Amino acid sequence: MLLEHDLTIVSLCRGGFFPGKELNKRKSAIDANRRAIDEASQLGTSMLVLVCGAESSQELEESRKQIRDGIAEIIPEASAAEIKLAIEPLHPMYADTRSAINTMTQANDMVEELNSAWVGVAVDVYHLWWDPFLEKEIKRCGQNGRLMAFHICDWKVPTRDMLLDRGLMGEGCIPIKKIRSWVEAAGFTGFNEVEIFSTTYWKENQFEYLQKIIKAYKENS
Amino acid sequence: MLLEHDLTIVSLCRGGFFPGKELNKRKSAIDANRRAIDEASQLGTSMLVLVCGAESSQELEESRKQIRDGIAEIIPEASAAEIKLAIEPLHPMYADTRSAINTMTQANDMVEELNSAWVGVAVDVYHLWWDPFLEKEIKRCGQNGRLMAFHICDWKVPTRDMLLDRGLMGEGCIPIKKIRSWVEAAGFTGFNEVEIFSTTYWKENQFEYLQKIIKAYKENS
Repeated sequence: MLLEHDLTIVSLCRGGFFPGKELNKRKSAIDANRRAIDEASQLGTSMLVLVCGAESSQELEESRKQIRDGIAEIIPEASAAEIKLAIEPLHPMYADTRSAINTMTQANDMVEELNSAWVGVAVDVYHLWWDPFLEKEIKRCGQNGRLMAFHICDWKVPTRDMLLDRGLMGEGCIPIKKIRSWVEAAGFTGFNEVEIFSTTYWKENQFEYLQKIIKAYKENS
Repeated sequence: MLLEHDLTIVSLCRGGFFPGKELNKRKSAIDANRRAIDEASQLGTSMLVLVCGAESSQELEESRKQIRDGIAEIIPEASAAEIKLAIEPLHPMYADTRSAINTMTQANDMVEELNSAWVGVAVDVYHLWWDPFLEKEIKRCGQNGRLMAFHICDWKVPTRDMLLDRGLMGEGCIPIKKIRSWVEAAGFTGFNEVEIFSTTYWKENQFEYLQKIIKAYKENS
């Protein structure tokens, strides 16, 4: 279907969720990520985005080690399949269950520690816009040659749901154009991926919603 | 009433909300903070907690400058009244409208820049537990002699409301005892203030709720 419509698959989203209290759970997460690498390969895309996971019954430091070890485990398969692994740092409000990697600083630290050309970072403005070190860390990521993806949407004021109330570009308070300029200054030339989780917009006519996205993209990003 | 019941007023909460697009709005915020210093003084407490504010229609960097300038403006009154000003860094999910100061690193940077014995930091585990630099920055704050307050509660999994769904200590995923040990290692000897914004608990019998708080405090903090 995608090929028929001349659409490019930027990435498969998502792998990750490496942490777990039990070894079995961590092993099955690694297996699931290996399958995701296969799927990405079969889809003809070159990237797997990692929502790294967090286990709320253990400390974040432990989850972070398990994420690092989990990614290290799948680098050989990623390399063999030529699939990039993009760590997506998630907003700190998701540190309980979705990701223990919550800033660009942490993502860059982990990427440098893992030290593989197949492991980089996906920058999503929704998760990272508040961080005073964002410009500096985007630059660092670019200098490392590891800036792999760029996701955009907006932070609505007020935000009524922690997961499913994202806004169209221009509808909220994120300086999207500014962050895009940082990403481009850091050498990023890939797609600007619009990613708007929103029960409100999902209820609308989806053709009209797509027109709104295109307009917002052209005007406010 | 408080004196009759042998209660200590730890602090007046809250001053702050310095940012504004218009000069008049910023000036009236400074006036409100001067009145808050007077009120704190009349109440016989020695501290005003600052929820610093954020203006979503301008960039965070601008709000941060206005916060710094606003605090600088009220230091003479704070010093004259001997009222400490405690900057409370708020969770990044409040960066749109409640505070542009979202980490201990930022609070410490600002405190060092303002360089007054009357300006320090209030550490709240709810806002800061996710930060990998928290231990280091609590230590830095203690070494500066500026660790002024310690607030506790817990982060419920899942959290159903961004403001009013905090948990009793032990009910969530924050390593409260560990963070308390960092705060104490940094020289803090003040109160452990339980601060649980919760529509759920506020609906209950408040005497029973208080018993629950005491039990949770003894067991899990």
